[in-house]
Amino acid sequence: MPKRIAAYGEVMMRLQVPGYASLAQESHLNYSFSGTGVNIASAIARFGHTGYLVSTLPDNPLGEAAISYLRKLGIGTSLISRGGKYVGMYFLENGFGVRPGRVTYTDRLGSSFNTAADEMYDFGAIAESVDMIHFCGITLSMNDTVRGQMKTLAREVKARGGTVVFDCNYRPSLWGADRYDFAKPHYEEMLSLADIVFMNEKDALYILGMETTREDRNEQLQELIPQVAAKYNITVASGTHRKINGDNTHSLRGYLYTDGVFYFSQTLTFSVHDRIGAGDAYASGVLHGISEGYEPGRTVDFAAAAAMLAHTVTGDTPTANEREVLQAMSQHMSDVER
Amino acid sequence: MPKRIAAYGEVMMRLQVPGYASLAQESHLNYSFSGTGVNIASAIARFGHTGYLVSTLPDNPLGEAAISYLRKLGIGTSLISRGGKYVGMYFLENGFGVRPGRVTYTDRLGSSFNTAADEMYDFGAIAESVDMIHFCGITLSMNDTVRGQMKTLAREVKARGGTVVFDCNYRPSLWGADRYDFAKPHYEEMLSLADIVFMNEKDALYILGMETTREDRNEQLQELIPQVAAKYNITVASGTHRKINGDNTHSLRGYLYTDGVFYFSQTLTFSVHDRIGAGDAYASGVLHGISEGYEPGRTVDFAAAAAMLAHTVTGDTPTANEREVLQAMSQHMSDVER
Amino acid sequence: MPKRIAAYGEVMMRLQVPGYASLAQESHLNYSFSGTGVNIASAIARFGHTGYLVSTLPDNPLGEAAISYLRKLGIGTSLISRGGKYVGMYFLENGFGVRPGRVTYTDRLGSSFNTAADEMYDFGAIAESVDMIHFCGITLSMNDTVRGQMKTLAREVKARGGTVVFDCNYRPSLWGADRYDFAKPHYEEMLSLADIVFMNEKDALYILGMETTREDRNEQLQELIPQVAAKYNITVASGTHRKINGDNTHSLRGYLYTDGVFYFSQTLTFSVHDRIGAGDAYASGVLHGISEGYEPGRTVDFAAAAAMLAHTVTGDTPTANEREVLQAMSQHMSDVER
Amino acid sequence: MPKRIAAYGEVMMRLQVPGYASLAQESHLNYSFSGTGVNIASAIARFGHTGYLVSTLPDNPLGEAAISYLRKLGIGTSLISRGGKYVGMYFLENGFGVRPGRVTYTDRLGSSFNTAADEMYDFGAIAESVDMIHFCGITLSMNDTVRGQMKTLAREVKARGGTVVFDCNYRPSLWGADRYDFAKPHYEEMLSLADIVFMNEKDALYILGMETTREDRNEQLQELIPQVAAKYNITVASGTHRKINGDNTHSLRGYLYTDGVFYFSQTLTFSVHDRIGAGDAYASGVLHGISEGYEPGRTVDFAAAAAMLAHTVTGDTPTANEREVLQAMSQHMSDVER
Amino acid sequence: MPKRIAAYGEVMMRLQVPGYASLAQESHLNYSFSGTGVNIASAIARFGHTGYLVSTLPDNPLGEAAISYLRKLGIGTSLISRGGKYVGMYFLENGFGVRPGRVTYTDRLGSSFNTAADEMYDFGAIAESVDMIHFCGITLSMNDTVRGQMKTLAREVKARGGTVVFDCNYRPSLWGADRYDFAKPHYEEMLSLADIVFMNEKDALYILGMETTREDRNEQLQELIPQVAAKYNITVASGTHRKINGDNTHSLRGYLYTDGVFYFSQTLTFSVHDRIGAGDAYASGVLHGISEGYEPGRTVDFAAAAAMLAHTVTGDTPTANEREVLQAMSQHMSDVER
Amino acid sequence: MPKRIAAYGEVMMRLQVPGYASLAQESHLNYSFSGTGVNIASAIARFGHTGYLVSTLPDNPLGEAAISYLRKLGIGTSLISRGGKYVGMYFLENGFGVRPGRVTYTDRLGSSFNTAADEMYDFGAIAESVDMIHFCGITLSMNDTVRGQMKTLAREVKARGGTVVFDCNYRPSLWGADRYDFAKPHYEEMLSLADIVFMNEKDALYILGMETTREDRNEQLQELIPQVAAKYNITVASGTHRKINGDNTHSLRGYLYTDGVFYFSQTLTFSVHDRIGAGDAYASGVLHGISEGYEPGRTVDFAAAAAMLAHTVTGDTPTANEREVLQAMSQHMSDVER
Repeated sequence: MPKRIAAYGEVMMRLQVPGYASLAQESHLNYSFSGTGVNIASAIARFGHTGYLVSTLPDNPLGEAAISYLRKLGIGTSLISRGGKYVGMYFLENGFGVRPGRVTYTDRLGSSFNTAADEMYDFGAIAESVDMIHFCGITLSMNDTVRGQMKTLAREVKARGGTVVFDCNYRPSLWGADRYDFAKPHYEEMLSLADIVFMNEKDALYILGMETTREDRNEQLQELIPQVAAKYNITVASGTHRKINGDNTHSLRGYLYTDGVFYFSQTLTFSVHDRIGAGDAYASGVLHGISEGYEPGRTVDFAAAAAMLAHTVTGDTPTANEREVLQAMSQHMSDVER
Repeated sequence: MPKRIAAYGEVMMRLQVPGYASLAQESHLNYSFSGTGVNIASAIARFGHTGYLVSTLPDNPLGEAAISYLRKLGIGTSLISRGGKYVGMYFLENGFGVRPGRVTYTDRLGSSFNTAADEMYDFGAIAESVDMIHFCGITLSMNDTVRGQMKTLAREVKARGGTVVFDCNYRPSLWGADRYDFAKPHYEEMLSLADIVFMNEKDALYILGMETTREDRNEQLQELIPQVAAKYNITVASGTHRKINGDNTHSLRGYLYTDGVFYFSQTLTFSVHDRIGAGDAYASGVLHGISEGYEPGRTVDFAAAAAMLAHTVTGDTPTANEREVLQAMSQHMSDVER
Repeated sequence: MPKRIAAYGEVMMRLQVPGYASLAQESHLNYSFSGTGVNIASAIARFGHTGYLVSTLPDNPLGEAAISYLRKLGIGTSLISRGGKYVGMYFLENGFGVRPGRVTYTDRLGSSFNTAADEMYDFGAIAESVDMIHFCGITLSMNDTVRGQMKTLAREVKARGGTVVFDCNYRPSLWGADRYDFAKPHYEEMLSLADIVFMNEKDALYILGMETTREDRNEQLQELIPQVAAKYNITVASGTHRKINGDNTHSLRGYLYTDGVFYFSQTLTFSVHDRIGAGDAYASGVLHGISEGYEPGRTVDFAAAAAMLAHTVTGDTPTANEREVLQAMSQHMSDVER
Repeated sequence: MPKRIAAYGEVMMRLQVPGYASLAQESHLNYSFSGTGVNIASAIARFGHTGYLVSTLPDNPLGEAAISYLRKLGIGTSLISRGGKYVGMYFLENGFGVRPGRVTYTDRLGSSFNTAADEMYDFGAIAESVDMIHFCGITLSMNDTVRGQMKTLAREVKARGGTVVFDCNYRPSLWGADRYDFAKPHYEEMLSLADIVFMNEKDALYILGMETTREDRNEQLQELIPQVAAKYNITVASGTHRKINGDNTHSLRGYLYTDGVFYFSQTLTFSVHDRIGAGDAYASGVLHGISEGYEPGRTVDFAAAAAMLAHTVTGDTPTANEREVLQAMSQHMSDVER
Repeated sequence: MPKRIAAYGEVMMRLQVPGYASLAQESHLNYSFSGTGVNIASAIARFGHTGYLVSTLPDNPLGEAAISYLRKLGIGTSLISRGGKYVGMYFLENGFGVRPGRVTYTDRLGSSFNTAADEMYDFGAIAESVDMIHFCGITLSMNDTVRGQMKTLAREVKARGGTVVFDCNYRPSLWGADRYDFAKPHYEEMLSLADIVFMNEKDALYILGMETTREDRNEQLQELIPQVAAKYNITVASGTHRKINGDNTHSLRGYLYTDGVFYFSQTLTFSVHDRIGAGDAYASGVLHGISEGYEPGRTVDFAAAAAMLAHTVTGDTPTANEREVLQAMSQHMSDVER
Repeated sequence: MPKRIAAYGEVMMRLQVPGYASLAQESHLNYSFSGTGVNIASAIARFGHTGYLVSTLPDNPLGEAAISYLRKLGIGTSLISRGGKYVGMYFLENGFGVRPGRVTYTDRLGSSFNTAADEMYDFGAIAESVDMIHFCGITLSMNDTVRGQMKTLAREVKARGGTVVFDCNYRPSLWGADRYDFAKPHYEEMLSLADIVFMNEKDALYILGMETTREDRNEQLQELIPQVAAKYNITVASGTHRKINGDNTHSLRGYLYTDGVFYFSQTLTFSVHDRIGAGDAYASGVLHGISEGYEPGRTVDFAAAAAMLAHTVTGDTPTANEREVLQAMSQHMSDVER
């Protein structure tokens, strides 16, 4: 059944150098607007739900462009407040083969989202208007105000019987290289509030400081995730293992743990056009499967196929609808459709 | 010896989304003009023959752009009449990896070509001015007027000792999913008129309703094509088997049946840049080999190499000349030519 | 006070040759989606109202691209039904100086909008959800089904106390050169249903067949419009006189007739970047002024300034908000804002 | 009556910096192929005649691109021989307002055209296949071989009763600043061979070394041209006076002298988009008028309007057909045609 | 005689929407790097001097792109230090006619330049290596650290006999609307340190709080500037009066006051392509004239012509060399140079 | 320790057709400036040395664009003289899969570089200002003047204790197909002057006419290179073996011979984006390793990694710095860096 699903997070302007040139070589950029919350809200809307973004954007031409873009993606913008002065940005230079791509951020701590006071949001009204809300570890790294807003909003939704989703998504470049200790209590609080969590064994080891004697990542996963789920009272834990192959393909396998059982998707191997945002496509697939009452095994297969497709699409934001993901699950190479 | 070869068919405007974006994501299109007849006439002109298109285009900026484009391709435009109001169009969104490309047609039934009355063409004069004429099953699906014109023109050419070529090219999306019964008599009439036919075992099975107990497509081919050739008095039957591989390459093998003998090309495997129009390159290669008096085995190898090259060229329309196809037949990977 | 305002009309795909080249010279196009209804709904949304489009679009990549584009423009798309197969299109080649621009239409009569059966719309529900609805003479020229839908919808809105708006917008190329007789009864029916009408003296003379002995167009206007308003019981009649000057500027003066009084805007003279859609900007300005309870003189000045600004904006669809129109009403040349 | 008209001249590749940037600022170029002969042959073909180019192009990708482009323009390419190694080129940076545009040539003396031996052309056959042939003073400046070919070809055409056209077009940058003495005998020989000549009073003064006591250019024109016509036995002399105005417009007036009478066009003033090639449009207009048997006054008006339109078209090569020039002769500012 | 001239200031990334679209309408940007210091250093290098920039840029892909761009402009980059994290940016949307352009800044206070500690610069070594140094009121508005660096550097240059230049360039949007009181002491300190000052009567009135009873701006100028020069011991004061005309042209007149005498340039009127950076071109022209020992009247004419040309060039940064400015001083409209 | 390293050679303008179209299909080009000397000087500057180009460029917009581009690449331009009229150019059409790319040169023998008289260079001063100088066999093929300049400059550098580098780089298309005899004495003279030589066994066999009974290229290399090094007194000989694989990858192994010992890099296999200039990246890597005193084995590994990276970069000219090459030497596939 279609749900009303919101994501709380920052809108980032993505400024991409076309082709395989560097910023120093080119003089043109393509721009779009994305961010984890944007990707989730858009993907979920393509799957037939109502997808809202909870965020703040400036009342200037950049904010106007962002709002237009979000509407184009099919995102409900009525929960976005307007204020502050800046939009977070990042520049993207594509890699090729052995040469890695590069991402350069501008100063996002001064953005409208990261400087928005609590008064910019009516947390109760937001919680009333949604069935499920999504938060992300990237946002959690920003500052205390934002962290406070995440927790308040999670509590308000939980209090009204809504579902709270949290994607661990730890980025060392944002928290600082050795700030696991600083991050840990914030992660623990979000895990305690969450019903559905996206993570894998690395999050358990590094953020939560858990220990294991095993060396194989699959064994680590199957040892640690049940402990995490038990401790924080998590209904569904899910995530992926990714392998980057030498021939310009990636391999991906999803897992989903619920009611004490692990479900694994097929390992999918595929060519990669635009890698950014694929994790959000996976999460959206899981949320869709759960919302629609899919079997867990079908849910994880659906999510993995959604993630695979997201690698073949231009831009961060997944664009596939349910029919296209189901078609990709059958995964035959096909000729042009005409 | 260079021949005068015409193709009867519609000029389609191809509107392609650049790169790998969707129509909803982009705001720019590249356009060109193509169609089976265009591809054949242009390819054959590159091989040193005179290639004419027999068609109708409107007397407006779109028709003017189409005519200019055909001239650029080296096609003789003196047999194109001007009238009607519209040009058929299709939009092309490129696929990437597991995500298939998409083709969306506009309403081509109202096009100048599809609404041109018989009076727009001087069938006798056209037949006088050519040695060979090519027809296609796509055109056969359009409407009764067009079907009538195909048959009239085929008869006029045949009556003057010219060669009639027919490419079965059955497109379910154009005839309707279960309209083999409706199509069959029209195909049979064209087969009876044709000297050279492009088809494979699927056409025999589905359009002509023939039957076989074999399951292997090569065995089916070798069982059915001789029967077809005998029944409709066809001098040369030819076609390809294509396999789409997982690593962004296709494999292709051509066959040519004449005088009771099958000739097969090597199986060629190659990276694909633009798949549309490759079948027309194959057909042009066969027509060139026959016109030049190549051995049948050389003809089918030449045609397969021409088809392979057509997959590496931007746009629907083959651009390789004879020297380039011969070079590709030797098929060594080569460095930049400088 | 913000109103809920719908426009009933077709979404057209605009395919524009960049710069000043012709279709035959170029190989790239810019595309967007517009149409009178689109322009009205978007412009009115920029002014702070809720703007809906009532239309039908196909469920294919073109329809999807159109819907995304409309959302980007800020248009409410919940009253758009999906079905049929095609989107109406037009190609635009820019003129330069003495060389006029050219517009070439594709076959729009087969479009989803023009082939949509009455069952595609829930007229009652649409009427319930709006305060005002806009119709256009371009739509009236299409076919009997569409004409029937216009009248039904107008009656349903009127019956619920809503306001009916009709823009005469007679296009000889659509009706046929001498089809005023055929058009007249349809226009008369729409005029009878309408509260607010956009027209000028030419519509009275040619469509309605009225007569005058005066030669000056301003005198004709002031003689005929009151007669029209009286006969069809029209609350507000409004329109513009345009003059195309030799130096790449246009001059525009708006009039508004209500309660027996004529109000005229200043004559505005300005450089022209993109002329298409300016009439819709004018109409939107009038509807906004009326909705907000502006004085009639201020309404016509606001509308003329909105029309002027629309000539300076890329694309058919007006983008100015209320603040920007008010700024333009003061009309000082200003330096870059930084 | 449609004529067969050839132009002898070099095909130049035009490499234009887009917009108003300099070569040092940009990294993209637009390219096309032009040259006086190209412009004449294409313009004359638009007017309904058969336009041939007599030239030589290399058998390499640049030559192939040039041939394709000429065919697109509607030029008959059967009189073009293939050989040599290079294509002449020029780079064009657009000016803006007070900042002049810049043209930078590459080494055109080594081009296929300028190095083609006489054996590359079958002068007799060329002369047989045309009614009229056009030569240009730019070509005359190249080298002795080319000058020889011009004269041979002119004599061959004359000998068969064809019409010889010569456009003086003296370019100081090509001949050298003070090489009038060197140029004079070559010009005199061409004038003696020519029936129709394009020139004005400056050519008489500087190239032919004639003298006058008058200071007004119109008076000079009317004094000197009759002397030139008499001396060299010229049937029609024609040309233009151009004035560059401060407001981004040019003014142009054409003259035509025949049978002892001067005919002048209106002085046309118009905005300029692309100035290069406008002189060739004028010449083509005169040749068309003469071929069609227009009155001399109508010919010069037609030619001036053709020149005016050529300023509004992207690229060197005129694109207007007869209908469009006639429309421009009435010269009303008009709205978008839709 | 060529001088070594440095400018101290921030490098800004300019992100420009192509054509006349808004950020919300487009998806592509052109980028370059500019800023007052950049413009001065580049312009002065084109005039044959050595132009250095004194600034700080981050050691990341944006800093790398900026450095490459500055080198391309001919700027000496050896006085630029590397550190910090961000580059200041602004987005530029072009206006058209009555619709003004819009500039939107990102958060430049966190840029490498604005956060560079004094230790990043070796003020003594910088002062040793230059004959003249330029500062700007925009930089003065940033923060106390930057203001301190300006004053230190000015003193160091002055102490070594170098020339100090200060351009008042008061931007209300940067200081705050009513912060003249806060700004005044900083301006006074810079004026005391400066030998050459760019300003006009408005700076005297608003920043310095001077008073006048006159209403005409020329009279105000001639009353106030001598007082300022006397009070702060300024050798040369110079500036412009600009008028924005209705027809897309601007008018500009420069003044230069030295040794008690006012010199005025002609009033130049010209079409405008890119207005930003023209003031810096003017300043560079004055510095060049002074460095070369031009007569004051010639200096102000040269500077005004340089400013005029800068309006016709794409991008903020002036590109004209001395020959081109001298050519523009004669100011004839000229045809394409070929 | 950073060195001052110059390269003597021509600046070529590279005009590349975007994407995979041919010159005949497209109308846009991307341009940049390169050449062996440009590539060496730029690459060496990225590695922290001072890289100079010794060349001649015209004083026109093309020369200006070239100089700007070289500065952008970080090349010292103070040893470039200005004069002559032309810039050498080549057009590049990308191949795809089995279709090879095509390079078409313009007439480079008339270029400023190839026509510069000895007086354009101050050989002594150049030799004074560098520690090492690089020459290339391509330049050696041009004409006697250029060959003379190479030898003079090599002798001047050698006389001052500098290091002379020579890259054999024999191009049959430039010397003529069977001109090994003509080339040989020039190559021998350069080899006698050189300290560091880039070559492999083919150069020994074909240019120097050496003989071997072995068939394996590695065995040939190890037999012949020591003989060459001994005969011409070469300190370091180095080069690569390249293999072009069927799957759009190349394999590359470098060798370095010094003090009687051969060092080989790993065989690297990688996807190819832009193959041109990779040999220059290899040479630059060797020069860097020698300048920095790397172990020979590390030098050849560094050079091979630099060559590999150059295949992944847009344009001829290598852009990687030392850190990036070292990172590539570890050669793990990595995800986007963010």
